[in-house]
Amino acid sequence: MVRINDNYLKLKAGYLFPEIARRVSAFAEANPNAPIIRLGIGDVTEPLPEACRTAMIQSVEDMGDRDRFKGYGPEQGYSWLREAIATHDFQKRGCQVDASEIFISDGSKCDTGNILDILGSDNTIAVTDPVYPVYVDTNVMAGHTGDGDDTGKYGGLIYLPMTAENNFTAPLPDRPVDLIYLCFPNNPTGAVATKATLQSWVNYAQDHGSLILFDAAYEAYITEPSLPHSIYEIDGARNCAIEFRSFSKTAGFTGTRCAFTVVPKSLQGKTRDGQTTDIWPLWNRRQSTKFNGVSYIIQRGAEAVYSASGQTQVQSLIQFYLENARIIREQLTSVGIDVYGGINAPYVWVKTPGGLSSWDFFDQLLQRCHVVGTPGSGFGAAGEGYFRISAFNSRANVEEAMARITAAFA
Amino acid sequence: MVRINDNYLKLKAGYLFPEIARRVSAFAEANPNAPIIRLGIGDVTEPLPEACRTAMIQSVEDMGDRDRFKGYGPEQGYSWLREAIATHDFQKRGCQVDASEIFISDGSKCDTGNILDILGSDNTIAVTDPVYPVYVDTNVMAGHTGDGDDTGKYGGLIYLPMTAENNFTAPLPDRPVDLIYLCFPNNPTGAVATKATLQSWVNYAQDHGSLILFDAAYEAYITEPSLPHSIYEIDGARNCAIEFRSFSKTAGFTGTRCAFTVVPKSLQGKTRDGQTTDIWPLWNRRQSTKFNGVSYIIQRGAEAVYSASGQTQVQSLIQFYLENARIIREQLTSVGIDVYGGINAPYVWVKTPGGLSSWDFFDQLLQRCHVVGTPGSGFGAAGEGYFRISAFNSRANVEEAMARITAAFA
Repeated sequence: MVRINDNYLKLKAGYLFPEIARRVSAFAEANPNAPIIRLGIGDVTEPLPEACRTAMIQSVEDMGDRDRFKGYGPEQGYSWLREAIATHDFQKRGCQVDASEIFISDGSKCDTGNILDILGSDNTIAVTDPVYPVYVDTNVMAGHTGDGDDTGKYGGLIYLPMTAENNFTAPLPDRPVDLIYLCFPNNPTGAVATKATLQSWVNYAQDHGSLILFDAAYEAYITEPSLPHSIYEIDGARNCAIEFRSFSKTAGFTGTRCAFTVVPKSLQGKTRDGQTTDIWPLWNRRQSTKFNGVSYIIQRGAEAVYSASGQTQVQSLIQFYLENARIIREQLTSVGIDVYGGINAPYVWVKTPGGLSSWDFFDQLLQRCHVVGTPGSGFGAAGEGYFRISAFNSRANVEEAMARITAAFA
Repeated sequence: MVRINDNYLKLKAGYLFPEIARRVSAFAEANPNAPIIRLGIGDVTEPLPEACRTAMIQSVEDMGDRDRFKGYGPEQGYSWLREAIATHDFQKRGCQVDASEIFISDGSKCDTGNILDILGSDNTIAVTDPVYPVYVDTNVMAGHTGDGDDTGKYGGLIYLPMTAENNFTAPLPDRPVDLIYLCFPNNPTGAVATKATLQSWVNYAQDHGSLILFDAAYEAYITEPSLPHSIYEIDGARNCAIEFRSFSKTAGFTGTRCAFTVVPKSLQGKTRDGQTTDIWPLWNRRQSTKFNGVSYIIQRGAEAVYSASGQTQVQSLIQFYLENARIIREQLTSVGIDVYGGINAPYVWVKTPGGLSSWDFFDQLLQRCHVVGTPGSGFGAAGEGYFRISAFNSRANVEEAMARITAAFA
């Protein structure tokens, strides 16, 4: 009989979001008139920028004209989009990233998972704790871990705790690791990495021949000018880092789907027989073989993000969510709750008041305030005692949610 | 240093289409005025159906309205699309496929590759010869094969030759296999499988506990009423087959990107310790973890395929390409060239005249007729002596190409 991939059986049953859904729906059933406000999942709520919509409508019309019709596009993405990205997101910030090093995709979740296809099965892997669960789950699926324990930790992975005590900056590993997942601005903590912090990581990676998988999905939320937006702002990063970017949180593309990954041509890895080999051709081959490119229509929408009007509209979206984050921070602080993040990120990371566990705080917020957030312990053991509140919602909902919380916890 | 996946180094350097491109561009450089007609790659050329375009424009407008805006959709796809597919493509043909068993994706190439994620690494795998190269290459990447030889065959795979001698119907394997790739109507041969043929495969799979990966990307081209469109028209298939479908060739979506995969809930596989386990939850977990669903806009376009006007427009597209195929068949036959396929498929599989090798015929067509096709040997050793001509082009180009070929080979 056909054999399945047994590693899937090690996965915890997606315990976080299903458990949230279960508790919310039990509450809603018992309290059908309670006006629940959801600040849990990190999904955008505001309309897609007009520039993107106009470009997509034009491109749909292209598809109706035989001469402008587009069939299969380049698997790597159209060069006009890759050139726009290289110029605006990288070269303008002094990063030496060429359009040929950019691979357009339909999501960073896909890319951060699929990247393991081209890597060996015997790398030592480090993740932060708390962590975006996809980094861990995709390694479990690929057989890179042992079994999971009750806190959600898997054997074989090296967890780097990020807590208030270390300012939510992942400490360098105390042993050699081959593969390192970093996400700044961080999901879930909203923490950022300074140039000095990233330089220490790049130095570590160069010293150990490690590969950094750098998730910069939230870089557009950076407000402090000194902070790096890309790991390629750091000397040496082109030799040790792959960067993941997305239009999801930047331009409201969570339902429209477009992202990209940067694989520098200078990046190398080691073969079984100890030779070094270029990594770019491996990813190019992976994408050419297992992917057919992003819809022409969607790529035209993403290209419009870089037009003058697109940039203005995107900035206004980001400012809107950042103002939500500011309100969340300010209101919670006003009743003595400690908060982190939310200045360069759309997430506020809350220290649960009164030493409550993450889930106890979740239950209190739901019962007393009818507000849904995400328990920090769901992102990893070091997230226990923390709670994520997302700034993705309407202004009215954010203000109402904060009014309820400040009244309840005053 | 980080280790790469050494299996990628076993891949032949995408020898087929790059080699075609190399020869065509060398010819074009030497003959800058030669009016080259490309009937090689299987890419559609005609405009996207109006019903799809109208639906996509409406959905782009939805994205501009806060109340109709769509963020993250269900990873499996929107239920309105899955319901439309289940009804029109399966239940209307008597197949017992439920909407919950359908997973919307951005391409069959992705799905036929990604499906290996959930399967074990020690299955015995059979492919046809000739074969769609993605089935083989993704197994090479996953480490399921040995090295490749000069004909493009990889050790460890079982190749089932399809030639004129067996009417291009893959013979049942002479030993037990766990995983079988079948594609009907076939790319590249254009051959079809009768219900009796598919029943013999389903019986084999049930007897051996095998899983059939059934690629039905070209089912819309079936003209003979007795032929099955889906493997689920065959008794027992729900226990042994996954089916891949695409809007690419049906509705001209090669540049728009939408496809789907059917994983019956009755399907089971075996774990390492010999237990049976359901396969549906594995694929659901894979897609939820490594995929974020297809763009809302594109899913609305795909849904419109099932509207009354969409069905009419799609039928007219398919009839257009089938008429091209008929012209190709008729013209080549008129000069004594043996042709196969092209009746229930957009591909005509040509026996090279005069015993020419596939590449020699390629060169002759290019040099003498300025027509580009695809050498059969590029799809596998049993494709040597054959040649694929695609019906995807304008009527004028097809007629002109056939006029040149019939003049040259008369």
